[in-house]
Amino acid sequence: MQQDIINNIAEICYRQGISKAIISPGSRNAPLTLAFARHPHIHCFSISDERSAAFVALGMAQAGKNPTAIICTSGSAALNYAPAIAEAFFQQIPLLILTADRPPEWIDQWDGQTIRQENIFGKHVKNSYNFPVDLSHKDAKWQAYRIINESILLSKVESKGPVHVNIPFREPFYPAKEFEWKYDPHIPIISQFSGIKELKADAKAQLLEKFSACNKVAFLLGQEDYNQDFLQKIDEISQKLNIPVYADVISNGHNLKNAITLTDTLCMSLVKVADDKYVPDLLISMGKSIISKNLKLFLRNHTKSQWHVSEALQFISDPFQTLQQLVSCTPYSFLEIIGEAEAKNNEFLYLWKNDEDKKQVKTSEFLNSNTSDFNELSALHQVLINLKQPTQLHLANSLSVRYVNFIGLKNLPIEKVWVNRGTSGIDGSNSTAMGHAITNNHKQHLLITGDVAFFYDRNAFWHQYPYRNLKIILLNNQGGSIFRMIPGPRDQPELENFFETKQTLNAQCLSNEFNIKHLEANSFEKLKAKIELFLESEHTSLLEIKSDSITNQKTFEAFKTYIK
Amino acid sequence: MQQDIINNIAEICYRQGISKAIISPGSRNAPLTLAFARHPHIHCFSISDERSAAFVALGMAQAGKNPTAIICTSGSAALNYAPAIAEAFFQQIPLLILTADRPPEWIDQWDGQTIRQENIFGKHVKNSYNFPVDLSHKDAKWQAYRIINESILLSKVESKGPVHVNIPFREPFYPAKEFEWKYDPHIPIISQFSGIKELKADAKAQLLEKFSACNKVAFLLGQEDYNQDFLQKIDEISQKLNIPVYADVISNGHNLKNAITLTDTLCMSLVKVADDKYVPDLLISMGKSIISKNLKLFLRNHTKSQWHVSEALQFISDPFQTLQQLVSCTPYSFLEIIGEAEAKNNEFLYLWKNDEDKKQVKTSEFLNSNTSDFNELSALHQVLINLKQPTQLHLANSLSVRYVNFIGLKNLPIEKVWVNRGTSGIDGSNSTAMGHAITNNHKQHLLITGDVAFFYDRNAFWHQYPYRNLKIILLNNQGGSIFRMIPGPRDQPELENFFETKQTLNAQCLSNEFNIKHLEANSFEKLKAKIELFLESEHTSLLEIKSDSITNQKTFEAFKTYIK
Repeated sequence: MQQDIINNIAEICYRQGISKAIISPGSRNAPLTLAFARHPHIHCFSISDERSAAFVALGMAQAGKNPTAIICTSGSAALNYAPAIAEAFFQQIPLLILTADRPPEWIDQWDGQTIRQENIFGKHVKNSYNFPVDLSHKDAKWQAYRIINESILLSKVESKGPVHVNIPFREPFYPAKEFEWKYDPHIPIISQFSGIKELKADAKAQLLEKFSACNKVAFLLGQEDYNQDFLQKIDEISQKLNIPVYADVISNGHNLKNAITLTDTLCMSLVKVADDKYVPDLLISMGKSIISKNLKLFLRNHTKSQWHVSEALQFISDPFQTLQQLVSCTPYSFLEIIGEAEAKNNEFLYLWKNDEDKKQVKTSEFLNSNTSDFNELSALHQVLINLKQPTQLHLANSLSVRYVNFIGLKNLPIEKVWVNRGTSGIDGSNSTAMGHAITNNHKQHLLITGDVAFFYDRNAFWHQYPYRNLKIILLNNQGGSIFRMIPGPRDQPELENFFETKQTLNAQCLSNEFNIKHLEANSFEKLKAKIELFLESEHTSLLEIKSDSITNQKTFEAFKTYIK
Repeated sequence: MQQDIINNIAEICYRQGISKAIISPGSRNAPLTLAFARHPHIHCFSISDERSAAFVALGMAQAGKNPTAIICTSGSAALNYAPAIAEAFFQQIPLLILTADRPPEWIDQWDGQTIRQENIFGKHVKNSYNFPVDLSHKDAKWQAYRIINESILLSKVESKGPVHVNIPFREPFYPAKEFEWKYDPHIPIISQFSGIKELKADAKAQLLEKFSACNKVAFLLGQEDYNQDFLQKIDEISQKLNIPVYADVISNGHNLKNAITLTDTLCMSLVKVADDKYVPDLLISMGKSIISKNLKLFLRNHTKSQWHVSEALQFISDPFQTLQQLVSCTPYSFLEIIGEAEAKNNEFLYLWKNDEDKKQVKTSEFLNSNTSDFNELSALHQVLINLKQPTQLHLANSLSVRYVNFIGLKNLPIEKVWVNRGTSGIDGSNSTAMGHAITNNHKQHLLITGDVAFFYDRNAFWHQYPYRNLKIILLNNQGGSIFRMIPGPRDQPELENFFETKQTLNAQCLSNEFNIKHLEANSFEKLKAKIELFLESEHTSLLEIKSDSITNQKTFEAFKTYIK
């Protein structure tokens, strides 16, 4: 009986460490729904819009540091998962995707909710399995259980990522009344002891020798959910060896002593011509993407050589076109190796640190003094410097994350920064933050987003689960105003209609609809009056900062000129 | 210069018959945006949510009977198109999908909005092309122009469907100031004279002979956008030869004289045991899917043989498991061939027609007399019988389309029925109807939908284009109450939380937000008072029918018992 086996699959998931599942309602996936919803140790959530459901799962997997299962019915339901799955793939977040399917004999037979689901996520999953159709033979069961074990383990080993299991179901979908609900105590659980990659002595020696030969070395932290041990280690080693750490806003390295965080500001003047004293001889990168376009161009145009440290090789990513050495061990153990080297001359470090300090001062000067023309950048700064509680910061793509990279996070009570920089889409930022807010309900979550990203993913709020600790700053400039910030689209007559795509919504209706406390500010006075109310509300609240995109553009340009 | 070539591509699209394009805002697709938005004869729309944009395009392509172009930026944007593309593939609706991409050397380099876009729509497009990266060589231009010609022609030949062209762009995306905006008068336009498949004389003779040997023949119309000529022809031939036409609500055959429309009702008692007099010796099907589960099961369990008539072979679809003969010519010319046969004995036709007439009476009796317990089925019936203007009817999947198939459309002023039965998803019914309403603004459009489908696709309303002639009946029972109608999920303790997925929204907020006139009825009295207001409003209006899902279930069961 298939329900038996599906129940055991839920049990395998639980015993392999999955504690959360998001189920989107459907008929074909009923056996999965029953198996997971009734499992005593798997916390299940029902979310109707699969696009949102998958992004919520992504947020839960980030917050819980563990794969979340997502379960949907057959047909286009699975396709709605695709944006979040691509994000999870490039961000290396583990997800277990269980899609119900018709049995293969019914594909292309004009039956409802039947599409071609094999390998439906293409190259954006680590693997895609097709479950056996007929589970009566004992080898089919063996295969089914093995697939589930493998898919979960695969999702969790470096490079982590989404794994897809497509499960065809024949009717009946519901067990008979007399069916006894139990788990086979002997189901195969395939455990894994996972070694940590350590370099051999000769590789260590070579590494150390090469490292010691370079005078100006810089670390670069790309996006990653670094653990505390690693952050302490890099803090220790970078100070001991006098190495600056390029750590822009998505790196989660903003609290390191040697962090160079105002990367966009600092590198603005270095992109085209850079005095050699600013240029590292060796750039040692860890983690994934960076956000700062100026840092990226500075490194691409000037860096002489780069090492990249990463335990696993997903692909060779060489965004600065100078990569020479991959170091395949944990970044922690790499730091231990080079920790034995002699300290570098501190000139290079101090050059960058002094510049960082100066830019911090100029940034504050500008943002504190600019109190006449209401604009997003200054408004955002005001909110951030008023943060008191430890905060998980969620940034939407496009302007939101870029603004914050200019403002910087030094000395702010930000615990972690989360942004979907795997694909850099605007499609799921509300839902991803929602996944965190539901999972870590005791923490304060602050989402900073623009109006296009916010309304795009408005179904994030369409569920029944509590998330009271979520606060949202909505930068509403009535369109995608990033297009006004860049010279190309700004100069086209299509700017308003086809780039910004002017939109007239505000969040009042949506807030009413979803019982969110709505606050609004279109001037510095109003903002001042509302910040405290917003940040100290016990309720989920949304602060809508309404500004004019032309003023925003002018202010942002004045700001860039001032801090140059 | 790439803008030159991209402009010519817009020109080829126009000259190949594309008159509408939906552009979703982005940076990488800027050259496409400029080329299409500035083209004097292509009407462009800007829609931010790509999921909705693609469904709107699907609706426009249906309404305009011509491919619509959809244009998006790189990254996950394209993945949001996927649900509508699968729907278009199985519903055979032509779409030209133009996705901007990074050039291949930047894939997997942690650059923003960069994913693996080659063949991203898998098996749900007719073909997927990769544009040349470097357009400077004359052969590359030749290839580029040829790809665009081919992709449009391919989308339009039977079986029609979506075709994907992935276009990598290198910076700069914007032409220099002195760039002269023009189209090459000599760009290659590859026209097509397309023959019509006609059977040869011996095939005709064999067909006619076999046809003449069967006594009880039935036509089955699956979903299709049949043209008037065909409908007249089948009306003529079915009457001449005494053949009933199974035509459930999605077939658009409800006005045929011999139409058997109440398929669910009529076949309810025939599914398991059917007196031979009801069983056709030969079923001749045309078009694609049918909606009625009872008709499907009746045919699958009893039919002796089936022919399927279709000009093109996409795949062998044999949902009744009795297919013996494919007839690959136009259904019109097939009807001409068999039109020469002798009329069948009229007993079989009259048997079905009499039953249909009786069921029509019983249906009306029940629905008119049931005025105590407010329920969706009766309420929907009340609205439908009050329709006066010629109406394009749009049905959402799940309960909405099933209710209407029970009620029937005979003698109602319904011009066309549209439902997304390609994948039967609930994901894009608002947007598809929106595509029609924008395109055929002079017609009345009525969308019947449930709360889950409606709120799922709420971004359908998030654009700036007029659509005043859209009327929406929202059956709000606060969840996916189809699950209460079927015995399996109804009996599970997970019914409310994981099948129905109870939701508390009503459409008042959304209506305010998008300037839709909102009317509400939770009793027959209120409904009566509002129907006229609703149907005669000059404004886009929404009638929310609020009912209790337990009452709905009971009424639906009482109804089914009564009409048996």
